[in-house]
Amino acid sequence: MTNVGYSLPVRVYYEDTDAAGVVYYANYLRFMERVRTEWLNACGFEIDQLVPRFGLLFVVRSVQIDFLQPARLNDRLEVSVTLERLGRVSMVLRQVVQHGSDELCRARVKLASVTVDGVPKAIPDAIRQQLEKT
Amino acid sequence: MTNVGYSLPVRVYYEDTDAAGVVYYANYLRFMERVRTEWLNACGFEIDQLVPRFGLLFVVRSVQIDFLQPARLNDRLEVSVTLERLGRVSMVLRQVVQHGSDELCRARVKLASVTVDGVPKAIPDAIRQQLEKT
Amino acid sequence: MTNVGYSLPVRVYYEDTDAAGVVYYANYLRFMERVRTEWLNACGFEIDQLVPRFGLLFVVRSVQIDFLQPARLNDRLEVSVTLERLGRVSMVLRQVVQHGSDELCRARVKLASVTVDGVPKAIPDAIRQQLEKT
Amino acid sequence: MTNVGYSLPVRVYYEDTDAAGVVYYANYLRFMERVRTEWLNACGFEIDQLVPRFGLLFVVRSVQIDFLQPARLNDRLEVSVTLERLGRVSMVLRQVVQHGSDELCRARVKLASVTVDGVPKAIPDAIRQQLEKT
Repeated sequence: MTNVGYSLPVRVYYEDTDAAGVVYYANYLRFMERVRTEWLNACGFEIDQLVPRFGLLFVVRSVQIDFLQPARLNDRLEVSVTLERLGRVSMVLRQVVQHGSDELCRARVKLASVTVDGVPKAIPDAIRQQLEKT
Repeated sequence: MTNVGYSLPVRVYYEDTDAAGVVYYANYLRFMERVRTEWLNACGFEIDQLVPRFGLLFVVRSVQIDFLQPARLNDRLEVSVTLERLGRVSMVLRQVVQHGSDELCRARVKLASVTVDGVPKAIPDAIRQQLEKT
Repeated sequence: MTNVGYSLPVRVYYEDTDAAGVVYYANYLRFMERVRTEWLNACGFEIDQLVPRFGLLFVVRSVQIDFLQPARLNDRLEVSVTLERLGRVSMVLRQVVQHGSDELCRARVKLASVTVDGVPKAIPDAIRQQLEKT
Repeated sequence: MTNVGYSLPVRVYYEDTDAAGVVYYANYLRFMERVRTEWLNACGFEIDQLVPRFGLLFVVRSVQIDFLQPARLNDRLEVSVTLERLGRVSMVLRQVVQHGSDELCRARVKLASVTVDGVPKAIPDAIRQQLEKT
């Protein structure tokens, strides 16, 4: 599976920064979730329709993230997501935060497909096929 | 009605600050909601039990807030709530954020009692009586 | 002074919502600050350049906000800012959050121009003229 | 090195939750940073004094985090930190979020000691000795 991935521009506002003058570390996870949402939306699966249409939602099981360089107020970042592995009930994504050609942050995010009660549920073929195309 | 109110210590962490070196303005509203939650809990109404026990939740209808002086990293603040007016389906609270004797922030918060569908619902006497005692 | 204002689309992500299924009340202030930042940027005053270029920053002195209807996950909102009054060291803005034609949230925000030490400082003519044009 | 670690109670408020009814994944990192701050404070190193006293601050270089079970509104969590490895310019911490005896979240956090300009700086003996005692 070769993926070009999907990316989203993200501006750094005051809300994202902290007293050290840089983006607060937890907020990169917020940026990464935004691009995952827009990626799913772009694949045709509106994030608020996953439960009504498919009886599932995607939850984050684990994150491995490296903070390489800080982002700062007003930076225009590019945040990307690439599908690395698509399993039966989970997937692994690569996510990168860039500022120009500088890589600021790099993560590996594992998502699981679960019912609203948290029970693992196979990712439907309709979703699987669209995700594999990106 | 005279009220002594209820207060909660709140430490300022990096997550609360922004690149200007002070607490980000929206975060004072987070502090104020924490003290409202602990106040309700202290009155005997656990915040997660309002829907199952009473079929209601309290939503914020309006906030009027003045930012007088900034709070900074590691400050140990005191955040208070005082019941100003208790109506049939709403209440008005006074909330203050203090650092030592300095008043940093002062707000007037109007809450409405609503069902999960957002329909106004009279505040039950059981709640009313406890709130009036604080 | 008649103003058409400036507006920005804002998508609602999981990060913005709370366990009541709607946007957490403090997060509307984050949305409003985003549009203020983009408005200033659009006027030619990059938010991170206000201190180096003009020796000033804008701080929020007060907010009066009404929460009319809730926003929900995945909503595509439109958040606007309109200059209501431009004083010597402060300004008053009208800000509205809309979902389609529904007004969800309406605020009056007072900003003050201060030095990095928090001393009031007259808004320079260069800034004043641009803001009045919007 | 055997460590008993340090822990802090953390209440889950609306601000911490999301529309899925659970704590938003990035917010566990906020909880973990709170306990790190209180741990450093308890060791005698107020977080806002690290730069003036020692010319350094601790930045997060990487996080590896597993989300095992969700926390919910009003939960009273216990968040802990244990020093796993203390290097010359960095340290590795183990952090756990518990609800009663349930482990909800488990992380390995690598911190680096840097100057305000981001240059690696040896952790002073004064700090090293206190941290090793916890």
